[in-house]
Amino acid sequence: MFDWLRAPLFTCLILGGILGVNIALAPQSMAQDAAAAESAEVAVAEETPAEEAVEDADLGVGYALDNAVLFLCAVLVLFMQAGFAMVEVGLNSAKNTINILSKNVMDLAVGALLFFFVGFGLMYPGSYGEVDNAYFAFGGSGIYDAAADRTFSPQVDWFFQAVFAATAATIVSGAVAGRMKFTAYLVYSALLTGLIYPISGYWKWGGGWLMQFGDLVDGEYTMAFQDFAGSAVVHAVGGFAGLAGAMILGPRLGRFTADGKSVPLPGHNIAFAALGVFILWVGWYGFNPGSQLAFQGTGDIDATVFIAVNTTLAAAAGAVIATALSWAMFSKPDLTMSLNGALGGLVGITACCDAFSNVWSIVVGGVAGALVVLGVIILDKAKIDDPVGAWPVHGLCGVWGCLSLGLLPNTHLESGATSLMVQLIGTVSICAWSFVTMGGLFLVLKALGMLRVTAEEETAGLDISEHGMHAYPSDAVSGGAVI
Amino acid sequence: MFDWLRAPLFTCLILGGILGVNIALAPQSMAQDAAAAESAEVAVAEETPAEEAVEDADLGVGYALDNAVLFLCAVLVLFMQAGFAMVEVGLNSAKNTINILSKNVMDLAVGALLFFFVGFGLMYPGSYGEVDNAYFAFGGSGIYDAAADRTFSPQVDWFFQAVFAATAATIVSGAVAGRMKFTAYLVYSALLTGLIYPISGYWKWGGGWLMQFGDLVDGEYTMAFQDFAGSAVVHAVGGFAGLAGAMILGPRLGRFTADGKSVPLPGHNIAFAALGVFILWVGWYGFNPGSQLAFQGTGDIDATVFIAVNTTLAAAAGAVIATALSWAMFSKPDLTMSLNGALGGLVGITACCDAFSNVWSIVVGGVAGALVVLGVIILDKAKIDDPVGAWPVHGLCGVWGCLSLGLLPNTHLESGATSLMVQLIGTVSICAWSFVTMGGLFLVLKALGMLRVTAEEETAGLDISEHGMHAYPSDAVSGGAVI
Amino acid sequence: MFDWLRAPLFTCLILGGILGVNIALAPQSMAQDAAAAESAEVAVAEETPAEEAVEDADLGVGYALDNAVLFLCAVLVLFMQAGFAMVEVGLNSAKNTINILSKNVMDLAVGALLFFFVGFGLMYPGSYGEVDNAYFAFGGSGIYDAAADRTFSPQVDWFFQAVFAATAATIVSGAVAGRMKFTAYLVYSALLTGLIYPISGYWKWGGGWLMQFGDLVDGEYTMAFQDFAGSAVVHAVGGFAGLAGAMILGPRLGRFTADGKSVPLPGHNIAFAALGVFILWVGWYGFNPGSQLAFQGTGDIDATVFIAVNTTLAAAAGAVIATALSWAMFSKPDLTMSLNGALGGLVGITACCDAFSNVWSIVVGGVAGALVVLGVIILDKAKIDDPVGAWPVHGLCGVWGCLSLGLLPNTHLESGATSLMVQLIGTVSICAWSFVTMGGLFLVLKALGMLRVTAEEETAGLDISEHGMHAYPSDAVSGGAVI
Repeated sequence: MFDWLRAPLFTCLILGGILGVNIALAPQSMAQDAAAAESAEVAVAEETPAEEAVEDADLGVGYALDNAVLFLCAVLVLFMQAGFAMVEVGLNSAKNTINILSKNVMDLAVGALLFFFVGFGLMYPGSYGEVDNAYFAFGGSGIYDAAADRTFSPQVDWFFQAVFAATAATIVSGAVAGRMKFTAYLVYSALLTGLIYPISGYWKWGGGWLMQFGDLVDGEYTMAFQDFAGSAVVHAVGGFAGLAGAMILGPRLGRFTADGKSVPLPGHNIAFAALGVFILWVGWYGFNPGSQLAFQGTGDIDATVFIAVNTTLAAAAGAVIATALSWAMFSKPDLTMSLNGALGGLVGITACCDAFSNVWSIVVGGVAGALVVLGVIILDKAKIDDPVGAWPVHGLCGVWGCLSLGLLPNTHLESGATSLMVQLIGTVSICAWSFVTMGGLFLVLKALGMLRVTAEEETAGLDISEHGMHAYPSDAVSGGAVI
Repeated sequence: MFDWLRAPLFTCLILGGILGVNIALAPQSMAQDAAAAESAEVAVAEETPAEEAVEDADLGVGYALDNAVLFLCAVLVLFMQAGFAMVEVGLNSAKNTINILSKNVMDLAVGALLFFFVGFGLMYPGSYGEVDNAYFAFGGSGIYDAAADRTFSPQVDWFFQAVFAATAATIVSGAVAGRMKFTAYLVYSALLTGLIYPISGYWKWGGGWLMQFGDLVDGEYTMAFQDFAGSAVVHAVGGFAGLAGAMILGPRLGRFTADGKSVPLPGHNIAFAALGVFILWVGWYGFNPGSQLAFQGTGDIDATVFIAVNTTLAAAAGAVIATALSWAMFSKPDLTMSLNGALGGLVGITACCDAFSNVWSIVVGGVAGALVVLGVIILDKAKIDDPVGAWPVHGLCGVWGCLSLGLLPNTHLESGATSLMVQLIGTVSICAWSFVTMGGLFLVLKALGMLRVTAEEETAGLDISEHGMHAYPSDAVSGGAVI
Repeated sequence: MFDWLRAPLFTCLILGGILGVNIALAPQSMAQDAAAAESAEVAVAEETPAEEAVEDADLGVGYALDNAVLFLCAVLVLFMQAGFAMVEVGLNSAKNTINILSKNVMDLAVGALLFFFVGFGLMYPGSYGEVDNAYFAFGGSGIYDAAADRTFSPQVDWFFQAVFAATAATIVSGAVAGRMKFTAYLVYSALLTGLIYPISGYWKWGGGWLMQFGDLVDGEYTMAFQDFAGSAVVHAVGGFAGLAGAMILGPRLGRFTADGKSVPLPGHNIAFAALGVFILWVGWYGFNPGSQLAFQGTGDIDATVFIAVNTTLAAAAGAVIATALSWAMFSKPDLTMSLNGALGGLVGITACCDAFSNVWSIVVGGVAGALVVLGVIILDKAKIDDPVGAWPVHGLCGVWGCLSLGLLPNTHLESGATSLMVQLIGTVSICAWSFVTMGGLFLVLKALGMLRVTAEEETAGLDISEHGMHAYPSDAVSGGAVI
């Protein structure tokens, strides 16, 4: 009965949000622009809005380098969307390809818009003053705040943060693949990027309570929950939201037999999955090194490339350990374990790539590789169907990355900047926040009959039932010719 | 009857062009090099040609940053070739895969060589002096002009411009897919990158008549046709050349029934198409932000990242609006519309990403998303077969991007640097130039019987008829094993 | 009989190596870290290890730019792993996809770890002092040597060199595809990245005997073997190791008939292969321009972008000439030749992209394109089965790139920095080193019965026989639905 409501619901949700805020805020800001232009004595034809704002300030090549590198890192992170899409498509059956790709495209598109109008302001309230301009809603203000001593232009800051939000969102796509209604996914995705992720992100990166442990000395706290690039803030948020989705949806038809036996449903194109992992690995060099957020100083750039090496070594160790473990356990080397092991190593090192030595990064990555194998087994025993292993990779290894800072020797622990207890509190809080809020949403959608497709639709595949098209139509493959 | 002529024709065309110019120009330039090296008192072993030329000038870290960022942006734009290849392959039938890929590889390879020997000199005449060296034919001169106060080395300038030329060329590939002879495509591609694109590019970016509107004050014109990164100069040139090709070729067999009904011919691998769109989206961060062309100044780098955000938001809005519209119209969300909507948003914002505020960029992208859906319907009604939607995306949205600068509030309009009339004149001139010249070429090829393959060849697929091989041979897929 | 030994063998090899060195070296270095932290009066919470080391030195924005660009180039080179994977998967039959992807992932993962613990120290002995720290085993020391006047942080230096080592390793994967045991490949890969590649790499890039030709003047030699980015040091090492493997393994079943006729075994997905070539082309802009290794000076950045243009032109010329030649010889344009021609052009220019003018780079690339076609024919006549053309592309064109520096006019030759004889000595030495050592290894493995799978396993495909899974399982493709 909700079928006919989907298109208008979706259209209203998105268009309403965008145009509403647009109408509310844009006119006066454009009017201000126009007024500002009028008051300026000479209007230089070639000047862009950004240039106008900073015409009095030249911050030197260092500022340019900071912004240029962060911009390029953000591009690498955005590229991860292609990686997630390929991994998830490859590890699922062919009949759900269109659906998965649609979810991934919409995660980025809807996510970018909602993070622009709502999320960024929630996560970094007041970052750019409170005065005159509403480009970023909810407390944001101004294209460029020359008075602040911060390094980055707000634009590149937003860009880098927005692709992180889209990353958190798209993690869930794989965990709920093959049985969730497209509309339900859109509602989830909008809520995560617009509300849930920014709120827990604020706790840590916006200056919230997870930054406030230890003693208050000269207005600053001596301890903080440490999560450098977001093992918990980004990955575990996605991983635990995915777990909630997978549990509340229930497994795909045929995934477990009536007497509880696990029946693996193989992915339809492992080459896509491997390509996706390579792309993710590449994109992670934007994610982790980019999170240094400053690149002009000697210390900062050294930290940046140090982080890149730790990221590389952890991914390598994760792949090797997951391969070796799965080989020993299942008698053959399982490529999907190698791939997820590399991803697990990457997720694990994300929280702590700035704090461990190279050698300890290998240990962190190797343990993450083992946890991926363990996590897959745990889900299997618990009869939870997570088609791509999103929870083992992003949830479990995300938790591990944060806890490792309280367990193994690293600079934060040695300098007293954190403790195992602080890491536990932060990690559990973030995971629980995501699991409970998104679990609540999924339960509501389930009660409304809006969560899961019917058994017939699932058997036919979401591509045809939800989107009316096949990813690989047989007449297009054969093209009328005998091949 | 022309079959036996294809190989020699192709060989002569390319080899002749390259070797001819090479023989004509290279010897004396190498002789000059040798003479220069002799006259230098100490030949330093490690010095490269570029280093020799600038041994007296150290322009500082800013110069290095400018060049490094433009280089990396050019790499991103070159990566778009992979994106176009995947989009076009995915949206066509399997039997034309080899042909499409061959066209895409050759667009880049032939395009780079012809733009080196001919196009660059035509588009930017006299950029590097008129004196002694003929590395760039037709008025180019000199590897490095230290006297000029320009920011970039000519080499990175050429690299960035060359990948733009290849982009313009490859857009057509999708529009004419499935029925154009490979030789005809090569002739088209060579002509576009060597002659047609550089000439209209010169009008705008080389200082030609599209830069000369308004009053002449102190040797400069007060108004100009505005097209920041090439919505018209690059995309509409490709889009309208593709339209000419699609119209003159006629539709693929079976695309329209005898009584005029439209029969969609589905693409064979939508996962490839989606991967291609993600790659294009990533590559666009080289295309638009890179077109700022200067990155060391505070204003320039702020503009660069501002452009990146506008590019992101327009793509997102294009995807959302095209999805919502197609969902409302066809009752299911159509992934190919989502994908082309994102691309339409990207094409639309290309002309104006420097001039609109963030919020207005969303409007520009959203309108482009709607135009993509509209354009597909227009082509369908007109019985023009454009298999990938090249004209709606690159032609129509390219026009929209330029016209939006004359219609919606932006810095160029407010400062009087352009007007709707100027934008109209520029856009129509460029589209007409491409449509008429390339249309003329296709008509000539058609008259010579060199344009379209036979019905038998088309039915068999261009892969086997033009290239003698399959992209997915069934014995290689099964590999002799039962799968 | 060796089946049961594979998993423990592999586990011991990798884990033993890593953990052994880890245990031997890490404790004291961590203890030192702790001691250093203790002795510091104020432990600043936010400082990373890298920052600690350089707290007294601020080398300015130039240092930051150098490191940032090399970091981004290393990321591009790492992306080449995805390119190799796609090329090799696409050009082989579907039943060996999992195996090829597993080899490629492990090349990177095992290679990074072994190059960290062993290879880097062998290749660049004493680069970072001899004193107190063992992050890099075998002579490496210290995270940051502030006293040295070198430009880069050791971390980014290692990262850039490590992805080169992984590139050399992964070239072999394609040449031996379809019949080598997975364990044998892992042993080969570990040995190449840990030992063979670093040793010959030391000869040239570590300051070894290939740098020491001509006269000794003021402690430096006047001549050296020239190989800018590794046509021989990287590509020919891989190409000749692959040739040894292909020869000792023998051809795939059915590749040559009993009476010696060649039977091409087509690749199963040429779209993957083309995507891979585009990715490799993109990654090469990290490989060649990145090898300038310094980017803050005007001369260095000019050289960097000059190298990028030469790389582009050589790739283009290689593709055009290979296409034209194969078209003329086989009457149809062969896409796999176009693709390998582009790669051949890229390999060829790698040694000399800093030394030839733009026009001569086209000649170098064009000759490489012709050599690719010739090499494929040579292998065919010799009945050597190299499924992807790894030797023609990386071996033959690698040799050509180095020899071209002794044959055609370029800055090294003109300044007396090398000669044809020196280039011959260097090239032959490196190729023979790789061919003989890796050939020896393959012969030992063959004698032990550990090299080649059985005929039954080969017919079934390595995916199922070595890994127990299919890349494209038919039930996942159909997903229970009729498609």
